[in-house]
Amino acid sequence: MKRHALSLALLATLAAPAFAAPDGDTRPTPGAIADAAPDAEWRRIADDDLLVMTLAPDAQGAERRIVMQLLPEPFSQGWVGNIRLLARDHWWDGTSVYRVVDNWVTQWGDGEDERADPKPLPTGIVTVPERNYVVAADSEAYRTVAQTLRSQAIRRAQSAAAPMRNGAPPPVAMEPRPGTRDYGADPYAPATGFYRGWPVAMNDAAAWPTHCYGMIGVARDLTPDTGTGAELYTVIGHAPRQLDRNIALVGRVLDGMEHLSTLPRGKGSGGVYADQARHTPIVSVRLASELPQGERPAFEYLDTDGESFARYLHVRANRDDSFYHEGAGGIDVCNVQVPIRPVD
Amino acid sequence: MKRHALSLALLATLAAPAFAAPDGDTRPTPGAIADAAPDAEWRRIADDDLLVMTLAPDAQGAERRIVMQLLPEPFSQGWVGNIRLLARDHWWDGTSVYRVVDNWVTQWGDGEDERADPKPLPTGIVTVPERNYVVAADSEAYRTVAQTLRSQAIRRAQSAAAPMRNGAPPPVAMEPRPGTRDYGADPYAPATGFYRGWPVAMNDAAAWPTHCYGMIGVARDLTPDTGTGAELYTVIGHAPRQLDRNIALVGRVLDGMEHLSTLPRGKGSGGVYADQARHTPIVSVRLASELPQGERPAFEYLDTDGESFARYLHVRANRDDSFYHEGAGGIDVCNVQVPIRPVD
Repeated sequence: MKRHALSLALLATLAAPAFAAPDGDTRPTPGAIADAAPDAEWRRIADDDLLVMTLAPDAQGAERRIVMQLLPEPFSQGWVGNIRLLARDHWWDGTSVYRVVDNWVTQWGDGEDERADPKPLPTGIVTVPERNYVVAADSEAYRTVAQTLRSQAIRRAQSAAAPMRNGAPPPVAMEPRPGTRDYGADPYAPATGFYRGWPVAMNDAAAWPTHCYGMIGVARDLTPDTGTGAELYTVIGHAPRQLDRNIALVGRVLDGMEHLSTLPRGKGSGGVYADQARHTPIVSVRLASELPQGERPAFEYLDTDGESFARYLHVRANRDDSFYHEGAGGIDVCNVQVPIRPVD
Repeated sequence: MKRHALSLALLATLAAPAFAAPDGDTRPTPGAIADAAPDAEWRRIADDDLLVMTLAPDAQGAERRIVMQLLPEPFSQGWVGNIRLLARDHWWDGTSVYRVVDNWVTQWGDGEDERADPKPLPTGIVTVPERNYVVAADSEAYRTVAQTLRSQAIRRAQSAAAPMRNGAPPPVAMEPRPGTRDYGADPYAPATGFYRGWPVAMNDAAAWPTHCYGMIGVARDLTPDTGTGAELYTVIGHAPRQLDRNIALVGRVLDGMEHLSTLPRGKGSGGVYADQARHTPIVSVRLASELPQGERPAFEYLDTDGESFARYLHVRANRDDSFYHEGAGGIDVCNVQVPIRPVD
């Protein structure tokens, strides 16, 4: 029973697919809230924003397919353009996953061993300036992001006012603490929230996406180099938020993350594999829009500006279902998995 | 060069062993600061606080040894007593790792399949009350933790006043933001810090250890059950801080984490392996003090009340070495890896 009960409680924290509350428990879990969200609150991800990376089969011969989503406007648009170009060029085909560091990143592209003879980049790759790591405060886009986060805060406050624990008023722990902006207390930025399904942070100068588990970024040389997008990494541990505003984030892993997070850790310099036989070959990387209709993955995310997401976030920050003894009374932006679900 | 440079920069973020700054860079990395810490600031971990778990060899026949450290007083003492008892009884020998959920936990002990016929526990296992998840504010221990965190904050403020960037005064981003307690802004607690080398959080009512990557906790049934310690898990993803004050933390993984974080994810209910053949057998779990002298692992941690750790923490929160374009100006308690090093 011990393992089973923990399993149920933990399952309820997983974003997708959504799960019901444990037997007989009427207090909602985050998963149950996402599960109950009406179809109208789910947003289909465009085929042109999905990348499918196929690795060589694993040691048991099983397929390894990873589905990634590219960041929407206004974030990372220079780099995302390069990524689309590299994908259309089939540039990553034949490269490899060459670096894995525990609680840090898994990195792929033209591997360490090819450094002396790097693979030529396709025509049209642009050099993106460092200022594009963020959306600057003097832009219309910044104001839109700020307004989105403000509206979310209001919606969450309304969710917090709703009774929980079988009709009882919310306990004190559910109220934002003095000096914090609802759940936004964050060591890295005065405000955090979600923009079109993505975790973001902002201050008075800029807005930017955040380095959470599964986010994908552009490896680069020393600043002011900003990288092309030909070498990418994904976060496989605790959010390394010190990289925010320092490296371009371009997307996130939606499916197949385990094929990147379970790879053997590298023992060479910086976690690069010392032995080239350890590299995992990349068979292909394709935009979903390039694949035949029947092979295209399809996903939806829960609208982060909707009522259900506001409730989901509130309950994520204030768990009071059967497993919990004490609600946290807060949550950090990278501990909120935006619900994602596959579409048949 | 691209991958190499990123590697160097990232290596510098790893806590142990420590690394020098990139060539020609005089601005210190956190790793360089830990590396330069005098021996007097390193604290040896007692043999009786180390647990050695040996898994069956991997598919290539390589050894898999994990070294864990038990939490010191005043935290989790009831559960830690149970853990020592289970280890001395060799209770875990022959059990398995039976559950792995991506970005969540790896869990071991008497597996899911044994539920109908659970392994009997040794005599002397105690039932620990829920109040022991935290150290209550009416205790002397709480006052000691609070004083420790206050002293650390003063030491960090002194570090922050020291010039950086080759003698220039610290940029504005290095100053604590208004309304935050130096780097303590945290969505989960009004204060965070380090106690005897461990990440902790506190409020006016209690102090408690935090669920960071690699921390080890006691799996349990629904509250008010608090678990015996016979089933344990370690965090393999972003810190699930909502579990703080809800599950007993009893230790952390010091070495061999990859043997737990790279295991295949479970496909059964709650991430338990659907196929028992996927279980990873546990050969043995021993207190280091039970092992022959020549086989005992030995580790030290950097004193979290010392000058070097204060500098380390300040620079972790305000990276300005060659790779960084903009310092974060803050850090969360689970993104600070306390430096740990092996002792020959």
